[in-house]
Amino acid sequence: MPGMTSTPTGLDLGADVVTLTAALVDIESVSRDEARIADAVESALRGLAHLRVERDGHTIVARTDLGREERVVVAGHLDTVPVNRNLPSRRSGDTLHGLGSCDMKGGVAVGLRLARSLPEPNRDVTYVFYEAEEIEAEFNGLGRLAGARPELLTADFAILMEPSNAVVEAGCQGTLRVEVVLRGERAHSARSWRGVNAIHAAGPVLERLVDYEARQPIIDGLTYRDGLTAVGIAGGVAGNVVPDECRVSVNHRFAPDRSEEQAYVHVREVFEGFEIELVDSAPGALPGLSRPAAAAFVQAVGGEPAPKFGWTDVAQFSALGVPAVNYGPGDPMLAHTQGESVPVADLHRCEDTLRSWLSP
Amino acid sequence: MPGMTSTPTGLDLGADVVTLTAALVDIESVSRDEARIADAVESALRGLAHLRVERDGHTIVARTDLGREERVVVAGHLDTVPVNRNLPSRRSGDTLHGLGSCDMKGGVAVGLRLARSLPEPNRDVTYVFYEAEEIEAEFNGLGRLAGARPELLTADFAILMEPSNAVVEAGCQGTLRVEVVLRGERAHSARSWRGVNAIHAAGPVLERLVDYEARQPIIDGLTYRDGLTAVGIAGGVAGNVVPDECRVSVNHRFAPDRSEEQAYVHVREVFEGFEIELVDSAPGALPGLSRPAAAAFVQAVGGEPAPKFGWTDVAQFSALGVPAVNYGPGDPMLAHTQGESVPVADLHRCEDTLRSWLSP
Repeated sequence: MPGMTSTPTGLDLGADVVTLTAALVDIESVSRDEARIADAVESALRGLAHLRVERDGHTIVARTDLGREERVVVAGHLDTVPVNRNLPSRRSGDTLHGLGSCDMKGGVAVGLRLARSLPEPNRDVTYVFYEAEEIEAEFNGLGRLAGARPELLTADFAILMEPSNAVVEAGCQGTLRVEVVLRGERAHSARSWRGVNAIHAAGPVLERLVDYEARQPIIDGLTYRDGLTAVGIAGGVAGNVVPDECRVSVNHRFAPDRSEEQAYVHVREVFEGFEIELVDSAPGALPGLSRPAAAAFVQAVGGEPAPKFGWTDVAQFSALGVPAVNYGPGDPMLAHTQGESVPVADLHRCEDTLRSWLSP
Repeated sequence: MPGMTSTPTGLDLGADVVTLTAALVDIESVSRDEARIADAVESALRGLAHLRVERDGHTIVARTDLGREERVVVAGHLDTVPVNRNLPSRRSGDTLHGLGSCDMKGGVAVGLRLARSLPEPNRDVTYVFYEAEEIEAEFNGLGRLAGARPELLTADFAILMEPSNAVVEAGCQGTLRVEVVLRGERAHSARSWRGVNAIHAAGPVLERLVDYEARQPIIDGLTYRDGLTAVGIAGGVAGNVVPDECRVSVNHRFAPDRSEEQAYVHVREVFEGFEIELVDSAPGALPGLSRPAAAAFVQAVGGEPAPKFGWTDVAQFSALGVPAVNYGPGDPMLAHTQGESVPVADLHRCEDTLRSWLSP
């Protein structure tokens, strides 16, 4: 039966990194629908004799086991945000367009190319290609592994191939959300002086946000920048009623020198005198650039590392005691946009840099 | 065929005003479902030879035509807000409970009692019992009459029997709603300094509301009181996005010495420098207490008249050039509450006062 040698979603890891990225983009893999791309990745990796491959759900872990002194993780997620008229992939000059080209199938393609072409890397490598990064944390394949099989993620250093303009972005900031609750007393708006307007009471809360002076702490030589910003406000009962409740939703982003608890103490201080409710939080991750493996990587990449402001899964490695950085092709500002794309040059640069760093 | 002499919803206008109020309460008549109560009212009035009765939709107009020098309107709406476990009526001591007992079947009962018992009033009387006061203005029976058959409402004076604690509440304030629109620029909340937060920009708007000094103009001896109050606020895109729009919904109540246009000019002045959008408005009504018919009525009722803060259909009479007051049994603060009720004493007082004022 001709044609059986390659499945429709067969991936040729021998193709160049741009072709491989396009092939990955063309396998639609919106979160919770990663079976097909995970099958393709698993099948391609199982063909490589120098790797030990395991699968957990739609998450694939492939490892060399050469007894090297150091082990590094190279990780990327397989899922994307929903399709937005941006499939299939399209090459235009020096740019590859399409859903996931930036976030982060370009990084996955680089990882797969390394997995195939480095049978004997100078450090042992654990490749992790995982599911459901773009949705609620409970579905995240990396988080599931970290909880159930942390030994699979044991390493001296981790590289998360999230788009970072092919520059090392180290650590990540933590995030915390609170609601500031203003209370009043209802009244008919024709007799508004009989009530206490909860919306009016929000003025001083907004004033504190405007006046907020953000720290810019320097950690491992990187300048982070805290933030405190309203992301929502809601109040009102009806068009003729003085409202008795108003809620201001506030997002605090904090540099990784503070824990979630410390960040919450800080937010409570900022809003002293107001009722606040904690909505959710996630810890930051220290850059850890002083660790030998990290320092060597930064030196290999060259250029100045930058701080990571957005929260990423590097925090999951950090929680396991593994220093981690973001390093991948593509501009993070294009992630989740309809027109996301990746420069061909970024794909080549990331592949070349990592191959040279890992080559014996 | 026994039983044909009275329909199931037959109203006995000869019964005392409390019994009649209870009978009206027990005919459920939520807005847009007034056919049954309108049938009952029409049928009872058509039995009175001294009245000329007309019906338009579920609105009934009944007039004496004695050629008196003055004509007055006595008006009340037949509909109620939705049922809220407050039917049927229930008498408890000196109070009658039940949906509409206060707003405003007590007033309707007084009007019906007068219609029956005053075949030759000293002023010609136009009784108006109308539909759909509690909902959108387009359905309002009084408004429809005012537009299509204004001659039916021609009079020297009008009494709207809305609950007013059996005190004359004169005129009514106008109402106007605007939205103050704050605009900004979206950004990821991890890099909030790259955006312009539209919610933060609402602080000065709320400050102006807090600082607002309301006029208390005196008109015809009555002290009104303007108001400017937030009735809603909304903004926010997602938990990790600096929002680019925030809207503050503001309700302005204004004494009837100002037109809608003047009120809008005032609100624009208060929010000078901000973008505002007019949502809706309704004019106030001057008390008109200096007009002879009104002055005589106030004298007949006795006590001090009060200003009306809430908007009522007296503004519709005012727009037709007919001075009008609110005067009816029941506490307006109980209107639209689950536990609305009317004091039996109010029912008797209103009936007695009006009968004495209209008696030859």
